[in-house]
Amino acid sequence: MFKRKSIVAALALAGATGLASAAQWQALPERAPEPADNPTTPAKVKLGKLLYLDPRLSSTGTVSCNSCHNVMAGGEDNRPVAAGVHGQTGGRSAPTVWNAAFNATQFWDGRAASLEDQARGPVTNPIEMGMKSWDDVVARLKQIPEYPRLFKEAFGPDAEISEDNAVKAIAAYERTLITPNSPYDRYVKGDKSALTEQQVRGMKTFAEVGCIGCHSGPAFNGQMGQGTGVFQKFPMFDNPYFEGKYDFKDDLGRYEVTKNEADKHLFKVPTLRNIALTAPYFHNGAVKTLDEAVRVMAKLQLNKDLSDQQVEDIVAFLNALTGPFPKQDLPRLPATPGRTFDFVK
Amino acid sequence: MFKRKSIVAALALAGATGLASAAQWQALPERAPEPADNPTTPAKVKLGKLLYLDPRLSSTGTVSCNSCHNVMAGGEDNRPVAAGVHGQTGGRSAPTVWNAAFNATQFWDGRAASLEDQARGPVTNPIEMGMKSWDDVVARLKQIPEYPRLFKEAFGPDAEISEDNAVKAIAAYERTLITPNSPYDRYVKGDKSALTEQQVRGMKTFAEVGCIGCHSGPAFNGQMGQGTGVFQKFPMFDNPYFEGKYDFKDDLGRYEVTKNEADKHLFKVPTLRNIALTAPYFHNGAVKTLDEAVRVMAKLQLNKDLSDQQVEDIVAFLNALTGPFPKQDLPRLPATPGRTFDFVK
Repeated sequence: MFKRKSIVAALALAGATGLASAAQWQALPERAPEPADNPTTPAKVKLGKLLYLDPRLSSTGTVSCNSCHNVMAGGEDNRPVAAGVHGQTGGRSAPTVWNAAFNATQFWDGRAASLEDQARGPVTNPIEMGMKSWDDVVARLKQIPEYPRLFKEAFGPDAEISEDNAVKAIAAYERTLITPNSPYDRYVKGDKSALTEQQVRGMKTFAEVGCIGCHSGPAFNGQMGQGTGVFQKFPMFDNPYFEGKYDFKDDLGRYEVTKNEADKHLFKVPTLRNIALTAPYFHNGAVKTLDEAVRVMAKLQLNKDLSDQQVEDIVAFLNALTGPFPKQDLPRLPATPGRTFDFVK
Repeated sequence: MFKRKSIVAALALAGATGLASAAQWQALPERAPEPADNPTTPAKVKLGKLLYLDPRLSSTGTVSCNSCHNVMAGGEDNRPVAAGVHGQTGGRSAPTVWNAAFNATQFWDGRAASLEDQARGPVTNPIEMGMKSWDDVVARLKQIPEYPRLFKEAFGPDAEISEDNAVKAIAAYERTLITPNSPYDRYVKGDKSALTEQQVRGMKTFAEVGCIGCHSGPAFNGQMGQGTGVFQKFPMFDNPYFEGKYDFKDDLGRYEVTKNEADKHLFKVPTLRNIALTAPYFHNGAVKTLDEAVRVMAKLQLNKDLSDQQVEDIVAFLNALTGPFPKQDLPRLPATPGRTFDFVK
């Protein structure tokens, strides 16, 4: 796990050697890594996509995974904090589902080790999708005639509808939500026309300033698929430079998971893939624009005051990490002919 | 406008002559009617679909047209009453968007004469999408870089983003949301294998019992595109047969629009197309299942006690009015790179 001091040291070294090495620039794999016990298959992806888009996985019948992690947009909701059933809001911003498959851990505090584990959470969170239990979810799904067949197609003829199978299917779908052919990827693979001059300049600045110290690897989220992921202290703007400028409530971050004193205010280093589409920024969405987010991070994490030109160049580079997005069909959700559920009003 | 007595008289006649005439069974047109000032074009449909699916048309950024009129399902939300911003709920059930293009009027009380006029309403309704005004919506759309170009593509090189153009585009998209090739349509067009024996029996019962008195025409919603549409008195279950069985609040229906005494408790005769997918039933969703809805309607409107067999047959027939649904792509919503809106929390 990176700690602040070691990063600053590493960055000093990077600064001394000039530009970051070519090995630092990695294209995103064309396929997301898959756990041995949940290979990505078309039948699972098909089922997982339906579950992902199905609001009947919420108590009110109004909130689906896609409500807060919108695959038609940047994979989240462009709000500071998401809104769940009955319009309730929580304390953290919905992270993007795009390329979440390349995160070593999920949630801002890394409390889920896999996409499967992440998918278990929101469904029964009382302020998100509000179901009382996964047993209730499973009972509902069993009453939707097509779902039993779709689970068998995905998991074998003896498979039943279960929490484990549901989250496996959702995770399988999410592993298809990747954007490996961004202008940046094409550039790294040799198409030197894929980036503008300003974007190339921003790429260099991104490395020289030290952003790449944490935002490294193909997904710019630290190393991929290793251990518990990369966390970084978020100083909650207790920097005089930002005094009173942002609305920041205290949030102990990873400490809430580990109860380890050293983990206080640590948050996962988020991917920068499609970052231009996921304003507002940070774990509570307190910063509204990408240029301001770049400026704030440089000051807070690296104690650097960037010039306007540097900020503009880095933002131009970050825009080169957007899309393209795989084409998808709008599916038909399985029906319950002649009846519905007693959704919570 | 049909009144209760004239229907009963007409039905007595239908009963006397036996089976309804073949002219009563009409297939749905392959294309929805279009107003002269808003022809359905691919560019408008493309734009309208984006607006329809875009939650940024709501104050909170969480509710799109599709939230309550889900095109992945039966064109509504399968809830008694819909949930808008902050989880607020209203008094009436969201009608289906599927084949709404064949309604002579829109809303349960017919207060909108066209799909265009309907689309104006929910966006600025404080308990639905919650925008303060269409000016605010237009101002927001103007800040989303791709929308100005899409409006020009749809409405001409001099066109601006405006309320009128937005609702025209949404209506154009909705005119593509039709299901003209249901088993019933194929049967009416000559494919006698398209319906099961029970469905054919149910079709005859549907006519003989008198359902077709109101639910007539290709969309089973009264005549198509004529005048102010077909309304029918809804006796609010003031029938001793239903005493205390359902949760019905008083609702003056069309009277709220016309202030005409005779319009008290009148509601639009809804289409029966895809009715199996839109439980719960009636203007406030008080009846949970389709078989019960058939039984209740026969008693309330026609004073007939249907046998279980008659109910089952009619329900089988109604299921033949479902789909198929046109294939659609999941679109990408236009982005606001590096920024978002100050959505209401």
